[in-house]
Amino acid sequence: MKEEEIKEQEESGIFISEKTKYITSFFEKTSKKKIENYCLTRLWHRLDNDEIKIIPQQYVNINPEKYALTDVYLPQFKIHIEVNEPAHYLSQVKIEEDKLRKFEIENQTGHKLYTIDCRKELSQIHQQIDTIVSEINDRISEQKSNGTFKPWQPDIEKNPDYWKQKKVISLEDEISLTNIEDICKLFNADFNKTKRGFLRRGALVHPKNSNYLLWWPAERARQGWHNKLSQDEFTITETHEDEDKRKKHFHDYYNTGQIRIVFFHNKDILGLTSYKFKGLYSYDSEQSKPEIGTVWKRISVKMSIQLEDD
Amino acid sequence: MKEEEIKEQEESGIFISEKTKYITSFFEKTSKKKIENYCLTRLWHRLDNDEIKIIPQQYVNINPEKYALTDVYLPQFKIHIEVNEPAHYLSQVKIEEDKLRKFEIENQTGHKLYTIDCRKELSQIHQQIDTIVSEINDRISEQKSNGTFKPWQPDIEKNPDYWKQKKVISLEDEISLTNIEDICKLFNADFNKTKRGFLRRGALVHPKNSNYLLWWPAERARQGWHNKLSQDEFTITETHEDEDKRKKHFHDYYNTGQIRIVFFHNKDILGLTSYKFKGLYSYDSEQSKPEIGTVWKRISVKMSIQLEDD
Repeated sequence: MKEEEIKEQEESGIFISEKTKYITSFFEKTSKKKIENYCLTRLWHRLDNDEIKIIPQQYVNINPEKYALTDVYLPQFKIHIEVNEPAHYLSQVKIEEDKLRKFEIENQTGHKLYTIDCRKELSQIHQQIDTIVSEINDRISEQKSNGTFKPWQPDIEKNPDYWKQKKVISLEDEISLTNIEDICKLFNADFNKTKRGFLRRGALVHPKNSNYLLWWPAERARQGWHNKLSQDEFTITETHEDEDKRKKHFHDYYNTGQIRIVFFHNKDILGLTSYKFKGLYSYDSEQSKPEIGTVWKRISVKMSIQLEDD
Repeated sequence: MKEEEIKEQEESGIFISEKTKYITSFFEKTSKKKIENYCLTRLWHRLDNDEIKIIPQQYVNINPEKYALTDVYLPQFKIHIEVNEPAHYLSQVKIEEDKLRKFEIENQTGHKLYTIDCRKELSQIHQQIDTIVSEINDRISEQKSNGTFKPWQPDIEKNPDYWKQKKVISLEDEISLTNIEDICKLFNADFNKTKRGFLRRGALVHPKNSNYLLWWPAERARQGWHNKLSQDEFTITETHEDEDKRKKHFHDYYNTGQIRIVFFHNKDILGLTSYKFKGLYSYDSEQSKPEIGTVWKRISVKMSIQLEDD
């Protein structure tokens, strides 16, 4: 369902829950890869647990020049899954590449990567998935018994009131706010100040400390501005199409001590847009250059919303 | 996967089992209706039994002027399932229509129709599906204990040697032969006789009795011939685009005593082609007319392959 369709349905009084939207969009997204889709639907339905979050196409940083996208990632258990359609086994070269890739991903992240070999009979494909399901169920029992299990709660991930009351936000909470109004609400900032005639400001100072800026950059150009989040999310490059504006901006922020609280405008792989908390970023004096733009580097993945010490 | 792709993969030595092909194509086919797809994948994976056959878009004859297509049909248990996306409940008129439809389908077929109401939370959608799953599992136990359970065996449905040894074929066996060669094999007919230069004959007499014709008509026009299987499959109308040929054919077969053993060329909803056994048909003297063509009516859904009495 397109975002507009969801809105339409909501307005017409039809209720579709957040989880239903997410998981059905997830399956639709993978529907063209038939065997992968089959394995993912089986994984989900055999797990039969709507407290589990599954993420498609997870970015994994292998080294500064190399990254991988795994088919599925289960963040609660740090488990990746790759569904290898029969074509993966056509050549020895491809088989060796897949092995190396698995080693690199596991080695770099400390996560576990499972591979489902789809050259087999249906019952054998099932068996492989059932093994993963039982491994995940073991992890859930473990986490529940030691109190570390965090259930998937998409309604909470986007609820500013929930996080306000929690007082601390962090990258691993996967906070995705629906709009700029919700960002303001979270920080007790005045939403009206974001309005500038018909335009919308791209940022607002934190009400408790003007050295902190609430910033909601978008990848997509807005009035000539470009903001590029690096694949590993360590840096954001802020630049302008127009050379004069770019240079002026560079000089305005040269060696600034400003800290930016970043909610990056995000269109997720399922086509749903939101502003996702990415952490705190400060000026990167090494990488910022008049011809490139201002570069912001990540300095923290966790913060106290009201900038208090605890 | 397109048929050509399947062939390609088979030729490249990659093995994908018949069941994997079928069920993954089934899911892909329904992938655009996101919630329906979600429910069907859940039904299948929770059943977790690859001896169960599921058919999408089952035709149901309600009366001579009215038919319905149900979302899913499980022929082994005579169970239909309708997935009602939230829009089904938008108006009282639609709700009443759905009720009437359910009544008509159950009344006409003696089958059971389940409806899944998708206006609910994910967990409530799950609950409804789990109820159907447990009903089906009860039926399987029942059928297994009284020896009537027929497992889904797509490899067998298309294997002429299997049916040859069985000696009797019937509509409910859902026999789908891959090509004309396999039809000939089943009846011990000489495949070479189907060749006519570069063309292929549309039929061949039964080797045991020349009053019986093995016929493999196709809906799609071939050299001007049209064969139309009625929705309820009670009649086949055989006609020609050209008026003279149509009239000649009508007169050639006027009041014939010929019986036709029909394997209708079939492109199933998943895009796979085959010749599907439809039963025995004889001349319909009431409906056949020079301007319409020759009409054949179904006289039996079961036959002994070698035309023996038992």
